[in-house]
Amino acid sequence: MKIGVLGTGGVGQTLATALVAHGHEVKMGSRQAGNVKAVAWAEGAGDSASEGSFRDAAAFADLVVNATAGAASLDALESAGTENLAGKVILDVSNPLDFSKGFPPSLTVCNTDSVAEQLQRAFPDARVVKSLNTMNCDVMVEPSLVPGSHNVFLAGNDDGAKAEIKALLEGFGWPSDDILDLGDATAARGMEMYVPFWVRLFGTAGTGHFNIKLVLGS
Amino acid sequence: MKIGVLGTGGVGQTLATALVAHGHEVKMGSRQAGNVKAVAWAEGAGDSASEGSFRDAAAFADLVVNATAGAASLDALESAGTENLAGKVILDVSNPLDFSKGFPPSLTVCNTDSVAEQLQRAFPDARVVKSLNTMNCDVMVEPSLVPGSHNVFLAGNDDGAKAEIKALLEGFGWPSDDILDLGDATAARGMEMYVPFWVRLFGTAGTGHFNIKLVLGS
Repeated sequence: MKIGVLGTGGVGQTLATALVAHGHEVKMGSRQAGNVKAVAWAEGAGDSASEGSFRDAAAFADLVVNATAGAASLDALESAGTENLAGKVILDVSNPLDFSKGFPPSLTVCNTDSVAEQLQRAFPDARVVKSLNTMNCDVMVEPSLVPGSHNVFLAGNDDGAKAEIKALLEGFGWPSDDILDLGDATAARGMEMYVPFWVRLFGTAGTGHFNIKLVLGS
Repeated sequence: MKIGVLGTGGVGQTLATALVAHGHEVKMGSRQAGNVKAVAWAEGAGDSASEGSFRDAAAFADLVVNATAGAASLDALESAGTENLAGKVILDVSNPLDFSKGFPPSLTVCNTDSVAEQLQRAFPDARVVKSLNTMNCDVMVEPSLVPGSHNVFLAGNDDGAKAEIKALLEGFGWPSDDILDLGDATAARGMEMYVPFWVRLFGTAGTGHFNIKLVLGS
């Protein structure tokens, strides 16, 4: 599949590299084509890797991954162009974390809204799926870094889009039973509001290589 | 120990009953002494159970449990009286959930503040510990309802107070290793913001008898 990964940070690079490794053609998008980090990534990632502007990456793609900072995501996708997103699945892995005021970080949007919902409202013809934002990027693409069963979550309004993302996650090694659909796009609020809790778990765990498992009782 | 449980809802009743069963003397507090639910509870719960106003319960107690609705907690503790809280541990199990606007619920305080921090600021001589708010009340007092290892969390500024609450949790059957200290009172933000996520997990689980487990990788 042709995948546009918007964002050149650690999350974008990790996802883009893993997607190439799993046989996809990936164009990394940034504010301007020729971004130093995107060029370096594309040069090192083989023939299926390329880079360009947000617009270039979205136009190229069958599926768009939003790996930009949550507070900047709406701007990034607007510069990608509505016409380049229409009908496409947008996998939104972003978190609207704001570390500018120190620790603990706060969220730039939460409670009655989420980044995923902002994107779905702004691009009603796109099919937004929130996923993977509840863990470190290494774990996103290699769930076996955390032993045994643990969970990744999905939220979005389009069941077909969620099925596509579920297949992508299975490609990364996520067992089908560990992929939990939490419902429509409003569930992204909970998934994003979980992240300040994740930050505290990170402090206790002392490593980013952890996750949570839903344990069911009787 | 003498424990004042503020709040007559399901959480307060479940905690109060469990505390009596574990050998504590418990006074359930409500806005006015003689609350119908509190009287019924006290009559059914044996000789170690009594009821009164928030003020009565706090004055009686060595340890105060805040099981009121999060949006009402500050008012409830103010009516309990600063002098009745000074020096005491307040176990804050509340969540500031607002279901008045329908589903999904929102929080009345979050992101840059939490109920636990509101209480700690309002009663600087009390020792607030946030715990147990991340699960159904049945699981709070009987963790074996969920099989195997799963976690309960602590946050607060006073290490001695957290040690007291840890001992109380161990009395409910929580293994020491499953009780995770997430840090100072600001960690209560994450613990409270987890709750909209919990609401979605509840929808997927189909039962309140579930919890999460932190799974560590390498």
